[in-house]
Amino acid sequence: MTPQRVTLITLGVADLSRSRAFYETLGWQPSLALEEVVFYQIHGAVLGLFGKSALAKDQGRPGVELGTGAMTLAQNFTTEPEVDTAWAAAVHAGATPLKKPEKAFWGGYSGYYADPDGHVWEVAMNPFWSLAEDGSLTLPEAE
Amino acid sequence: MTPQRVTLITLGVADLSRSRAFYETLGWQPSLALEEVVFYQIHGAVLGLFGKSALAKDQGRPGVELGTGAMTLAQNFTTEPEVDTAWAAAVHAGATPLKKPEKAFWGGYSGYYADPDGHVWEVAMNPFWSLAEDGSLTLPEAE
Repeated sequence: MTPQRVTLITLGVADLSRSRAFYETLGWQPSLALEEVVFYQIHGAVLGLFGKSALAKDQGRPGVELGTGAMTLAQNFTTEPEVDTAWAAAVHAGATPLKKPEKAFWGGYSGYYADPDGHVWEVAMNPFWSLAEDGSLTLPEAE
Repeated sequence: MTPQRVTLITLGVADLSRSRAFYETLGWQPSLALEEVVFYQIHGAVLGLFGKSALAKDQGRPGVELGTGAMTLAQNFTTEPEVDTAWAAAVHAGATPLKKPEKAFWGGYSGYYADPDGHVWEVAMNPFWSLAEDGSLTLPEAE
């Protein structure tokens, strides 16, 4: 049995300085910044930036060109204006707009952008999912 | 300013039943399973599985073939045998082995595998990073 957890998300990046500047413009402060890797504390877990070719090597497949896209990292908010603000801040920081925040068919409000390496972020408000005060998300009990 | 948080990780998958069976074999139980999407509670956040083409559409780029790879989702453990067990369980469940767990140059122990869609998971023990009892990870204070 494998625990249901993710303790570290590592994004492979082409240019660590460029990516670090992007996340810094969003207001993110690293807890640990080394020459080849940067770590950000998120609630209960860590997000790291790591050179793409170094990541491929670390993954046991040196030389492989790693792709991106079939994954979304989402940030949930409690109001639509917060979603708009977060999306605008990212685009201002140089993100590629994918979808301007809009009403979603599932009853929420959601937008998408891609970071400098094509990593996809969603910013969303889901009226059925409440955030705790620390920003963490626990699914509602099944009915 | 954008909060330093990830509340939802969504993996795009080619075959939802196949992926759900894979994670179920690892012992993961969904909190919410709909026809087109499955959600797993992880500590303080949620991991979802969602059809790859539906995800591309939701991301605002319908028809685009999404890639994977330049990202690792890691599970940290406190001992090497736990890492070995988790890696073996995944391979037994049908994961593609990328790197059998081994001593890492940074002082820990780490292995990699890919899930049925190529999403890369790392299983690791980092002697410098302690896990809380609930499995969450908080970076040590900078010295």
